[in-house]
Amino acid sequence: MKILVKVALSSLVVLGLTTTGLSAKTYKLKMAMSWKKTTPILAATALRAAELADEMSDGRLKIRVDGAEKHKAPFGIFDFVKQGLYDIGHTASYYYKGKDFKMVFFTTVPFGMTPNEQYSWYYEGGGKELAQKVYEKHGLLTFMGGNTGIQMGGWFKKEIKHLDDLKGLKFRIPGLGGEVMAKLGVNAVNIAPGELYMSLELGTIDAVEWVSPYFDTKLGLHKIAPFYYTAWQEPASELQFIINEKKFKKLPNDLQVILKSAFKVATFEMMQKANYQNALTWAKIKQDYPNIKVKTFSKEIIDALKVATKEIFDKEAKKDSLFKEILESQREYQKKAEAWTEISDKVYLQTR
Amino acid sequence: MKILVKVALSSLVVLGLTTTGLSAKTYKLKMAMSWKKTTPILAATALRAAELADEMSDGRLKIRVDGAEKHKAPFGIFDFVKQGLYDIGHTASYYYKGKDFKMVFFTTVPFGMTPNEQYSWYYEGGGKELAQKVYEKHGLLTFMGGNTGIQMGGWFKKEIKHLDDLKGLKFRIPGLGGEVMAKLGVNAVNIAPGELYMSLELGTIDAVEWVSPYFDTKLGLHKIAPFYYTAWQEPASELQFIINEKKFKKLPNDLQVILKSAFKVATFEMMQKANYQNALTWAKIKQDYPNIKVKTFSKEIIDALKVATKEIFDKEAKKDSLFKEILESQREYQKKAEAWTEISDKVYLQTR
Repeated sequence: MKILVKVALSSLVVLGLTTTGLSAKTYKLKMAMSWKKTTPILAATALRAAELADEMSDGRLKIRVDGAEKHKAPFGIFDFVKQGLYDIGHTASYYYKGKDFKMVFFTTVPFGMTPNEQYSWYYEGGGKELAQKVYEKHGLLTFMGGNTGIQMGGWFKKEIKHLDDLKGLKFRIPGLGGEVMAKLGVNAVNIAPGELYMSLELGTIDAVEWVSPYFDTKLGLHKIAPFYYTAWQEPASELQFIINEKKFKKLPNDLQVILKSAFKVATFEMMQKANYQNALTWAKIKQDYPNIKVKTFSKEIIDALKVATKEIFDKEAKKDSLFKEILESQREYQKKAEAWTEISDKVYLQTR
Repeated sequence: MKILVKVALSSLVVLGLTTTGLSAKTYKLKMAMSWKKTTPILAATALRAAELADEMSDGRLKIRVDGAEKHKAPFGIFDFVKQGLYDIGHTASYYYKGKDFKMVFFTTVPFGMTPNEQYSWYYEGGGKELAQKVYEKHGLLTFMGGNTGIQMGGWFKKEIKHLDDLKGLKFRIPGLGGEVMAKLGVNAVNIAPGELYMSLELGTIDAVEWVSPYFDTKLGLHKIAPFYYTAWQEPASELQFIINEKKFKKLPNDLQVILKSAFKVATFEMMQKANYQNALTWAKIKQDYPNIKVKTFSKEIIDALKVATKEIFDKEAKKDSLFKEILESQREYQKKAEAWTEISDKVYLQTR
């Protein structure tokens, strides 16, 4: 039987049941990002997820997105969401390796998988379930949040030819890459993005690892350090969405699926944006700054970096059985993925 | 004012207005695939999109998915959707190059972009708008529909060393790859998948290009043709969703965004699935069939294939201005993307 129901919408804004049983309640969530609202590509990913959730839910799922300029705690996202001050966070898992070293596995690791290999491991090879094991004890759900693509090894004022050239080098390289470099004698430091150009120009530091052409040139690094080294430390830097599990479970099922899909679409789109902007920027830099020299660390240095990386991981694996489980899961899949990449992508890039 | 509305759901199944103005009408669409419902990965992508649309819409968007075993026309999807016999199709654009040669650009082209480069071109570099220009005259909307990843060059019973070895070779390679090979003297043929193994075993054909390890080994090709050649002809084979524009526009805005997001999530997931299965399969084949030799065509052959590809494209560009526009758009972006890939992914694959 077909019945057309006409109601005065204004009298029914708070709660009702639709004819399909669909809850018409509006859910309002708050998301905190590690970046400013104006940070290109990264903030755009969080804002895109919020926009999609709004549109797909026909306005029933509203997400207010706050940047670091508002909440003032770029590395406090994890605690914000854990404590319920925010419902959702857009951040990078490895920022919280001080809380739990296992969190590095869900961003990227030195000499690790490429973005597509990492997505396969995460979505198909058990990575998602392992990530959730790490996050669940904090009452958090975790989702991938967009990839920057392969990150470059950094801008150096002088060429690095031998292991000796690294001894005492003042190099801005945070995180795991910094720890590995420190084992080779590098003076690894972290400096706020806003001070990087000046520090490099004044000689306070000798080199800077930031992201990739599009992001790096916004800081002007290419103007004062002509040696641009290729990637080893962050082959697939993935951001993440985290959400307070209790808040998530309060959403009806359709809005849960909408939110997860919004995260996934925004994640997929971010890598396309980053790759596109990097390609355009690199073409322009090559033209405008022909003096820039792209270099790859020598085999001697790369081998030493690999050994140092392995030492850090193996040491941690002895202390933490879940760390060991995740490490072995990644190593086992990466071995297979590399063999396939070897005869597919790698050969093709040499052939075309 | 808060009013709780309780209604007998059974009396309102067809059409109503929710308290947020959300239409509670159920929309039923039909999707036809070029593959059988049991075809792994490919069919799973269409079924996943339908499942997501259902869940995100809380059952208001129902998509019935029919495989080729039902509609009997794997290459008739374009006409089905154009004529409105089906609302949605899941197929590959290049199947319809006979109708319009421009359609090859939205699947993959010989020596073209990698999947991630192609996604960047499509979503960020104007590709989507160019695709729509080609499809709009047929009353169709087009969306990307999942990537198989780089496809291998095929299984050969004998090693191909020189251009002369290709002359008269009976090679199952359809599409544009076949046209290019034909220019080099190959007897390029198309044979139904179900007959490939037998044709190769009996010597009716000398070689078969199919997809990649996961798909190829299901046909058993690795058991009778030990030379496995690397990729050149399909570096980024993308499927597509097409939808009848009139049908799409009848959907309310939230369901339109839900459907597009469902397509995009399923698209993103497909490449992870294909890469994952290829990695696992290749690891197993290497172990079980150590006699298989991976080969790359010689520089002489690759150069000849490049020249033949360019000739086919340049000839067509003279006849069709929109073809020329798309070709130039792809070439211009690929040039930049290759320069970035050269110092990022390519070097990294050699370094790690």
